[in-house]
Amino acid sequence: MPSEKRNDYGDESLKAHKKYGGKVAITSKMPLDKPEDLSIAYTPGVAKPCSEIAEDVSKAYDYTWKKNSVAVVSDGSAVLGLGNIGPEASLPVMEGKCVLFKKFSGIDAVPVVLNTQDADEIITAVKAIASTYGGINLEDITAPKCFTIEEQLKQELDIPVLHDDQHGTAIVTLAGMINAMRVTGRKLKELKIVVNGSGSAGVAIVKLLQHVGMQEVIMCDSQGIIYEGRAKMNPTKEKMAGITNCNKVTGSLGDALEDADVFIGVSVPGVLKKDMIKKMKKDPIIFAMANPVPEIMPDEAREAGAHIIATGRSDFPNQVNNVLAFPGLFRGILNARSRNFTYKMYVAAAHAIADCVDEPTPEEIIPSAFDKRVAQVVADSVEEACGKG
Amino acid sequence: MPSEKRNDYGDESLKAHKKYGGKVAITSKMPLDKPEDLSIAYTPGVAKPCSEIAEDVSKAYDYTWKKNSVAVVSDGSAVLGLGNIGPEASLPVMEGKCVLFKKFSGIDAVPVVLNTQDADEIITAVKAIASTYGGINLEDITAPKCFTIEEQLKQELDIPVLHDDQHGTAIVTLAGMINAMRVTGRKLKELKIVVNGSGSAGVAIVKLLQHVGMQEVIMCDSQGIIYEGRAKMNPTKEKMAGITNCNKVTGSLGDALEDADVFIGVSVPGVLKKDMIKKMKKDPIIFAMANPVPEIMPDEAREAGAHIIATGRSDFPNQVNNVLAFPGLFRGILNARSRNFTYKMYVAAAHAIADCVDEPTPEEIIPSAFDKRVAQVVADSVEEACGKG
Repeated sequence: MPSEKRNDYGDESLKAHKKYGGKVAITSKMPLDKPEDLSIAYTPGVAKPCSEIAEDVSKAYDYTWKKNSVAVVSDGSAVLGLGNIGPEASLPVMEGKCVLFKKFSGIDAVPVVLNTQDADEIITAVKAIASTYGGINLEDITAPKCFTIEEQLKQELDIPVLHDDQHGTAIVTLAGMINAMRVTGRKLKELKIVVNGSGSAGVAIVKLLQHVGMQEVIMCDSQGIIYEGRAKMNPTKEKMAGITNCNKVTGSLGDALEDADVFIGVSVPGVLKKDMIKKMKKDPIIFAMANPVPEIMPDEAREAGAHIIATGRSDFPNQVNNVLAFPGLFRGILNARSRNFTYKMYVAAAHAIADCVDEPTPEEIIPSAFDKRVAQVVADSVEEACGKG
Repeated sequence: MPSEKRNDYGDESLKAHKKYGGKVAITSKMPLDKPEDLSIAYTPGVAKPCSEIAEDVSKAYDYTWKKNSVAVVSDGSAVLGLGNIGPEASLPVMEGKCVLFKKFSGIDAVPVVLNTQDADEIITAVKAIASTYGGINLEDITAPKCFTIEEQLKQELDIPVLHDDQHGTAIVTLAGMINAMRVTGRKLKELKIVVNGSGSAGVAIVKLLQHVGMQEVIMCDSQGIIYEGRAKMNPTKEKMAGITNCNKVTGSLGDALEDADVFIGVSVPGVLKKDMIKKMKKDPIIFAMANPVPEIMPDEAREAGAHIIATGRSDFPNQVNNVLAFPGLFRGILNARSRNFTYKMYVAAAHAIADCVDEPTPEEIIPSAFDKRVAQVVADSVEEACGKG
């Protein structure tokens, strides 16, 4: 495993969380100073907006927080690099997501952690509370149940649902790939791509890249290459085996990488070795996105010949950070009041993110997570894509 | 029905709700300006508080919003004077409650409206999301299912649960009665009391007043006096029939009021007539709390001989307003980190509210809803009552 030299901010974080008592706080958008203020915000005045909504439920978007609110929902089953830590322990992550929503897109997001890890019970719970919000951001729910949960909620709810670990990561990865193509002059459809990690992010990345033209892709998991008929595969992996690995290769990650152009890792620290990179095509593109420690440290990857390197870390160039995607995605769809996220929106968002880099170079294929333009252009592109159906 | 002369603030309210887009907004308690801020509030630093909570779930009270957060939960089945208007239409009321929580006790409350009106499904949904919050405020859920829901959640959850329509109303009513006794020199246990309305508030008022010594009480509903063996009674009314009306009186509300000392109305506008008051004992006490129009208007009640008059309205003296109770109740129990609300706490809260009136008079038995001392003294008294078990 590569060494972890940077500050992990653990002690500072613990101290800050204790000092502030978490992160999310509530405020009132209406004044509440005089008795008349209460008569307007609460009883008796509030009866009027209630009655209007009772007559036409869509008016909840006019008179309540609904048009600007998102629930960040998790069962705590697949949190960051921490794994299955349960609902309470995942709260700091969900609160963090909520305050990022506010900072980057002005959306009022609230955490909802669930005291069940059963897919059907999660679906039932989210359906029960969904009327409260304008959208649902599913977060840190383990694969493969996350696919069922998202799919069923998308079908049954009348508000947009996004599993950010899938699509947020896939969108920012695609944005990086778009600029990597610009830098290298290569074409996506001509590349051999290896995706290591078959959880929610890996599956979503493969599907999104296929949607925009990727032809040759091999997925790997901890057992090696995924191929049709392999043992130890859940239904999702079986499905992915059917739509990837067209040459029916078997073997290890190292075998998969022979003559590959691109490595995309959404797996675990340290699994990509220098000698594997050396077996790839010349000037390979490496997305090593395991958090907090990547599949290979950028210095090592460069020594082995990598041309473009992206990670999930803020202390190296090209950080693949979902915060580039989710605030704008929800801002755009809430503005359009559209019901479902679509691949058209994901692709539009990826192009909007990629276009925020004025002149892509190997050291800059992805804009900074602090680039304030990004959320707005993503929102605009998603809203436009909504309009186009 | 008495005439409704005051401004109902409907148009102003509609305009304000549209302008602000509802009432509840989110802010971050931590700074989010520099990259280091994000490293502390979110990844990678957030892994540390997550890990600490994973090891000891009670630390969620140290590192998340849990110790200061309450969910205001409703199915929209019994909203104010509006009835069963469903979840979306009840959102303006729940948001209003949330901003009152913040204003009066600094608690971060969020609305949760449920897309089911089935008691078991409501219980299941609240259990699923409860880990997110430090407490559950049930709101505007119809009787008799509200009793089952509250009781079962109190048994199964490890955070405090309060159905405010029951206990908030009962506590403020008791506070008013305490001062009415001070003003008149009467003793609660010697009075004949009639409670008109057998929904959540009526039942809770009877139980709380009995807890502090009330001996003779008759409950009425729209069919008249509730007595053992009467037809058309749900299980709750049957139970109440068994613990009230010791003289087994039958008949109408008017019959019940003969020689009564106190009328407590949590029913519908205009049902208390002047001639009924004239049949009560001399100088009767009238709590006419139907909203927005009381069971009898205060002027009429006074003409008929009422000595002390309380209503739910802010434009007459002695407003019975739950905002005097719920912010302090939750502030106190969250501070004490106690699991369940108890009658001891309710009684302590009522005395704290009553004691905020320095010199009770017939025109002032209840402090103003804007009296900023109230929430704090209620919180202190509840926290102390928690300590006493």
